[in-house]
Amino acid sequence: MSTILADLSWRYATKNFDSHKSLSDTQLSLLKESFNLTASSYGLQPVTLLVIGDKLLKEELVSQSMKQQQVADASHLLVFCIKKDFDTTYVKKYFELVKEIRQTPDEVLKPFEEYLMEQFQNKEASEIELWATKQAYLAMGNLLTVCAVEKIDACPMEGFIPEGYDKVLGLQEKGLQAVLVMPVGYRAEDDPFAAFKKVRKPLEQAIIEF
Amino acid sequence: MSTILADLSWRYATKNFDSHKSLSDTQLSLLKESFNLTASSYGLQPVTLLVIGDKLLKEELVSQSMKQQQVADASHLLVFCIKKDFDTTYVKKYFELVKEIRQTPDEVLKPFEEYLMEQFQNKEASEIELWATKQAYLAMGNLLTVCAVEKIDACPMEGFIPEGYDKVLGLQEKGLQAVLVMPVGYRAEDDPFAAFKKVRKPLEQAIIEF
Repeated sequence: MSTILADLSWRYATKNFDSHKSLSDTQLSLLKESFNLTASSYGLQPVTLLVIGDKLLKEELVSQSMKQQQVADASHLLVFCIKKDFDTTYVKKYFELVKEIRQTPDEVLKPFEEYLMEQFQNKEASEIELWATKQAYLAMGNLLTVCAVEKIDACPMEGFIPEGYDKVLGLQEKGLQAVLVMPVGYRAEDDPFAAFKKVRKPLEQAIIEF
Repeated sequence: MSTILADLSWRYATKNFDSHKSLSDTQLSLLKESFNLTASSYGLQPVTLLVIGDKLLKEELVSQSMKQQQVADASHLLVFCIKKDFDTTYVKKYFELVKEIRQTPDEVLKPFEEYLMEQFQNKEASEIELWATKQAYLAMGNLLTVCAVEKIDACPMEGFIPEGYDKVLGLQEKGLQAVLVMPVGYRAEDDPFAAFKKVRKPLEQAIIEF
């Protein structure tokens, strides 16, 4: 089996984390850099990642996460947030960043910038929210695989109360809303889920070739 | 730099593919298996992957993809589709698969099965569609990273006409709807985009630590 397939087979939605094991600074920095390298729609990066190592905060968030204990036991809790206030200001900032990093002349960027400004001027807030939420899933898809490659255990989670996370972490003042959660760290040696066979459809039911 | 960070930095949204280079059967099989290993909400796998190698079909799809030539030039075109008819029948099928693969006793699975059946009975079709679409983004996030690790070039795309894809590929009869597209193959040697510096926010703007 190829290495990447072995890595993807090794990973599973870890339910029991070893609360005594912590990720190293090198591992955490790798996760942060990998998150920041995720592709995003138009390159606009509408997703912010929270990296929570604080024990008390993690414990407080368990009750906002359908009592799932892995939120507290994992070394760190990653929270994928969308920017609630994403608008043309962010589009402008992006193009400033492009000019700064690539030194692209204004006349080259202008048509694309005008197109995007118009797009975002005419979008409803709910539409932008949905667009950003999809990018959060893309980012989690990337990080889940990065974790697998780096043998970091992870549990992708949709089941939590965004308003509860908001209250505990003060997200509203930051213009953020939590859309996905992912505890990361090390599986507990006695997690029975680790030994379960992966349940997947046969390939011929999951894929159609043309 | 770690290998995975080097891989993620190597990847970029490839605009010009080398139309003379094809992915090998081993590479294609690795992409298919990796797709099937993607995590999904409740493990339900509501996403089907189309793998299109047929030259004429790829060419026909360019006009349905904002004339983006990479759809035809890439070795293969991956199309992430959601199941339009996803309902409790699929939930039942999933639990049959769990029993088959893990030999889990009925009494262990029952509470979770009943919970999910109820969930999906009470969901609007539009809600299920959105839920499935998010899983397609998760799958693309995984495959983009797998491609980076395997040095396969890729271009994640949201800009295409789902109805056009439906017509060309007969998706409606299959109960499918295209939500994301990703040409894969090899970058052309003269793709100017390959040399562009990556534009990313500074880490301190993308991440908040607690």
